[in-house]
Amino acid sequence: MTTTPTAPSPTRSLLDAVRAGVRVVDLGRRLTVGMPQSPNHPPYWHALPRRHGDMVRVDGGSAANDMISMGTHVGTHVDALAHVSQDGRLYGGLEVADALEGGRYAELGAHTIAPMVRPGVLLDVPSALGVGRLEPGYEITVADLERTLELQGSTIVPGDVVLVRSGWGQHFDSGAKELFIGHDSGVPGVGAAGAQWLVDHGIHATGADTIAYECLPPGAGHATLPAHRVLLVENGVYIVETMDLEELAADRIHAFVFVLSPLPFFGATGSPVRPLAVVEDE
Amino acid sequence: MTTTPTAPSPTRSLLDAVRAGVRVVDLGRRLTVGMPQSPNHPPYWHALPRRHGDMVRVDGGSAANDMISMGTHVGTHVDALAHVSQDGRLYGGLEVADALEGGRYAELGAHTIAPMVRPGVLLDVPSALGVGRLEPGYEITVADLERTLELQGSTIVPGDVVLVRSGWGQHFDSGAKELFIGHDSGVPGVGAAGAQWLVDHGIHATGADTIAYECLPPGAGHATLPAHRVLLVENGVYIVETMDLEELAADRIHAFVFVLSPLPFFGATGSPVRPLAVVEDE
Amino acid sequence: MTTTPTAPSPTRSLLDAVRAGVRVVDLGRRLTVGMPQSPNHPPYWHALPRRHGDMVRVDGGSAANDMISMGTHVGTHVDALAHVSQDGRLYGGLEVADALEGGRYAELGAHTIAPMVRPGVLLDVPSALGVGRLEPGYEITVADLERTLELQGSTIVPGDVVLVRSGWGQHFDSGAKELFIGHDSGVPGVGAAGAQWLVDHGIHATGADTIAYECLPPGAGHATLPAHRVLLVENGVYIVETMDLEELAADRIHAFVFVLSPLPFFGATGSPVRPLAVVEDE
Amino acid sequence: MTTTPTAPSPTRSLLDAVRAGVRVVDLGRRLTVGMPQSPNHPPYWHALPRRHGDMVRVDGGSAANDMISMGTHVGTHVDALAHVSQDGRLYGGLEVADALEGGRYAELGAHTIAPMVRPGVLLDVPSALGVGRLEPGYEITVADLERTLELQGSTIVPGDVVLVRSGWGQHFDSGAKELFIGHDSGVPGVGAAGAQWLVDHGIHATGADTIAYECLPPGAGHATLPAHRVLLVENGVYIVETMDLEELAADRIHAFVFVLSPLPFFGATGSPVRPLAVVEDE
Repeated sequence: MTTTPTAPSPTRSLLDAVRAGVRVVDLGRRLTVGMPQSPNHPPYWHALPRRHGDMVRVDGGSAANDMISMGTHVGTHVDALAHVSQDGRLYGGLEVADALEGGRYAELGAHTIAPMVRPGVLLDVPSALGVGRLEPGYEITVADLERTLELQGSTIVPGDVVLVRSGWGQHFDSGAKELFIGHDSGVPGVGAAGAQWLVDHGIHATGADTIAYECLPPGAGHATLPAHRVLLVENGVYIVETMDLEELAADRIHAFVFVLSPLPFFGATGSPVRPLAVVEDE
Repeated sequence: MTTTPTAPSPTRSLLDAVRAGVRVVDLGRRLTVGMPQSPNHPPYWHALPRRHGDMVRVDGGSAANDMISMGTHVGTHVDALAHVSQDGRLYGGLEVADALEGGRYAELGAHTIAPMVRPGVLLDVPSALGVGRLEPGYEITVADLERTLELQGSTIVPGDVVLVRSGWGQHFDSGAKELFIGHDSGVPGVGAAGAQWLVDHGIHATGADTIAYECLPPGAGHATLPAHRVLLVENGVYIVETMDLEELAADRIHAFVFVLSPLPFFGATGSPVRPLAVVEDE
Repeated sequence: MTTTPTAPSPTRSLLDAVRAGVRVVDLGRRLTVGMPQSPNHPPYWHALPRRHGDMVRVDGGSAANDMISMGTHVGTHVDALAHVSQDGRLYGGLEVADALEGGRYAELGAHTIAPMVRPGVLLDVPSALGVGRLEPGYEITVADLERTLELQGSTIVPGDVVLVRSGWGQHFDSGAKELFIGHDSGVPGVGAAGAQWLVDHGIHATGADTIAYECLPPGAGHATLPAHRVLLVENGVYIVETMDLEELAADRIHAFVFVLSPLPFFGATGSPVRPLAVVEDE
Repeated sequence: MTTTPTAPSPTRSLLDAVRAGVRVVDLGRRLTVGMPQSPNHPPYWHALPRRHGDMVRVDGGSAANDMISMGTHVGTHVDALAHVSQDGRLYGGLEVADALEGGRYAELGAHTIAPMVRPGVLLDVPSALGVGRLEPGYEITVADLERTLELQGSTIVPGDVVLVRSGWGQHFDSGAKELFIGHDSGVPGVGAAGAQWLVDHGIHATGADTIAYECLPPGAGHATLPAHRVLLVENGVYIVETMDLEELAADRIHAFVFVLSPLPFFGATGSPVRPLAVVEDE
């Protein structure tokens, strides 16, 4: 028998912090059949092919199981860099045909998104602007972002993940499904300028509480996606959509450890995720 | 405009630890069409309904998207407590019919699994036993678990997550798909006694690098699942299967922060996951 | 070698009729992503996991393939007798629990629908009433059915399949998707009385050019389905929905050979179909 | 009110033949989870999202529904001309890229297969050769086809549909799933020469009781598909696979009306079908 001495522990203070107690704020939306999602993607559906009692083993045990059909841009989700192209090219100038291998995006697909355990910053724009929720179609300006940063006393360090709250997430499970999607009403969000401001701060990823991250003018649908172009195509910054940012805002948690662990679907353009904000217990 | 002062930061040392640099070890398997999985569940399939170039907007932008079909017990995954019943009852004595609501497991479904940010312990059994990989069908005994704990100098604290390595995960992407599944060959793992030992240590969840967590005798298939009964039904301990534990073992990382954030599929019996082991950078 | 003399041909006149030339009128709707369908069922989605060129064999050959997700009540479809129950019982008084086997409707499921090659009758109600299309929410009365039969000079023989046209099918691919579904607007159709009249004529199956066969009052949705109860549950008469009856009506083809060959999905509650009306070439 | 006189009936003898009584032989296989199918296509899966009792309306009515995931080349199915290409071209010399529109085969897709009501001929090769079933990997020769035709006293007229029986379909539901697929064992069928012989007879479509129509040598898998090239790509002749031809053979029904009504999946490469052979009642 070989002894297997433990390596000198490199995890002392991190583990200590966790042992001392952490609060985990769930930033993901529950996946339910019929929830609001973009009509451009296969909707989330779920059924149980086998329920308890359908087939019981002789020992009295029984297992139930599931069948799921969905797109990847359903519920709270992250966009892979393979999701959006401009003029035939993906991030890094890669030609779209060159990213494919056997019919899937071997390059820049969801499986290439490294799990994130990074400093996270919430920019609670409506709170900074003194409103409960931004107006539909409102474009969050650079001035809004800077004001929010200043009022919060927050700082953004290169490599951070920045979450931009609009308050629009309040519509997700209010029953006003069409309102959350906002095809007719519009949706608030950053535009190209705001996206560039985030890029200039060197962020690794960004997220929002809306379905498309973007500012969608009323009636415009998802026809153009300038922030996606700036973030995904030009700068390789990941986008997380349909987040639940209400608890963070209510408790004024503006700095946290952000955790995101996308499912590594080989060659896909995104993944549903359940992002977390982790802080020490008070 | 209202000022929004940041709450007194409760995250100093945790955030500091992350800013100082962490190593994130990916414990999840890549999801690819054709990967080994249990034939009892709908297999993972993926296609791109739209690739770049299929529909290009007037501004030269293009979005690709996905279509996925799968069970929830595919790839690396976690079992919800609704997955297994014994004599018509789930964890806590809940009658199986009472857990259903509208055809889904409203009680004990995947959406009820709280995200985990907890101390994690690797029990590297084959290293402790001086072998590269356990034999197929080998039942990991309580003596094996205790010897591993002792040799590693590890400790298990109530609430921890304990990962039991068999080495069998080496077969996952070796091309020997049927061998990993082990229907004919058998698969090593803990039995009822080992599961009870884990329960006695007060663990919150446990995982393994095999498809069913259990010790499967050659040719027996998945006919009886004693560890599932002990863990899920009798004690409410979550099980994570098909993990990649090779990197942790190779680098002798036996203590870490374990992160698991299952997709909150309402009423489902499990979720594919990408668990993480987080340690400080050396 | 054994000789295998052909059996005395029983098909002379039928085959002769076909060899002499037949006209096949397609009564099925094309299945496209985004077509109108009931929101109660998983929508039709399709993607090509592999397109030509993704994987080319050394001999220059290449195969493309598909991935489909759907409910069974999508596009033109037939209801199995397992689809609807009343007070816990299916057709023939079968208790719903007794129809299940391993989680599927082994009794009265889609696989039990025998293929139909039967005399078919079109009841072109709007033509008989002198309108191009019935009003939304209009209930087709017994008087309407009798008048149509008389004006057409048609007869219904027990075992026949009777198709009841409302003209509402004109909305199927007009782009007015919500109008075809009719949740707000209502949809014309037979009620309990009309269904009973059809039953009294001994029909084997019936169809319509609407999404639910029923008369749906504006704003009522699919809350009650009296014709389904009369036809499926009380009398075992199959229902075909979302048919294209415009060509038959335009060419005043009121008698034909009706062909329906549902996919024998074991234990399912229905099947998409492509029904045919076959007549001799003029 | 406008009178709507029935058009002079063109269906007299055809309808008369049907009224006189027909026998409908079902040539389709039942679709069940776990049935044998090619591993190159998404497997057939089915679940009931809603069973009776999950949601009962106030009037005591209840509807159950389904969720299906599948490829199109599952169960008994027909290949669209878009399924196979050779050297970058489909039937008619169409370049593969030109057949696509919005990511689906708008040209030569499954929706372009006209429903078939045509004379059908069974070539019962094993009966002609005096065996119950052809050997695995046996290539049905032109001489075999001619001998069968002669012994049966059958004739093939241009436009007919010819079904070539090998007897291999006996393995479909024998439980010997791997044997039916034949990856290791091989499968009997026509080769390029036999396919060309069929083409020379001017047939419209052809079918077989095997999974791939082709002669598959033992261990060769589906690596090359010469009959597909000759039939689909070079001559636009449809192929139907995994048929049940046992009843036709047992009753020596060699001539019949063949009915095939594929689901018009827009842009797909095939469709599951339930083909029928219709003969007059004896």
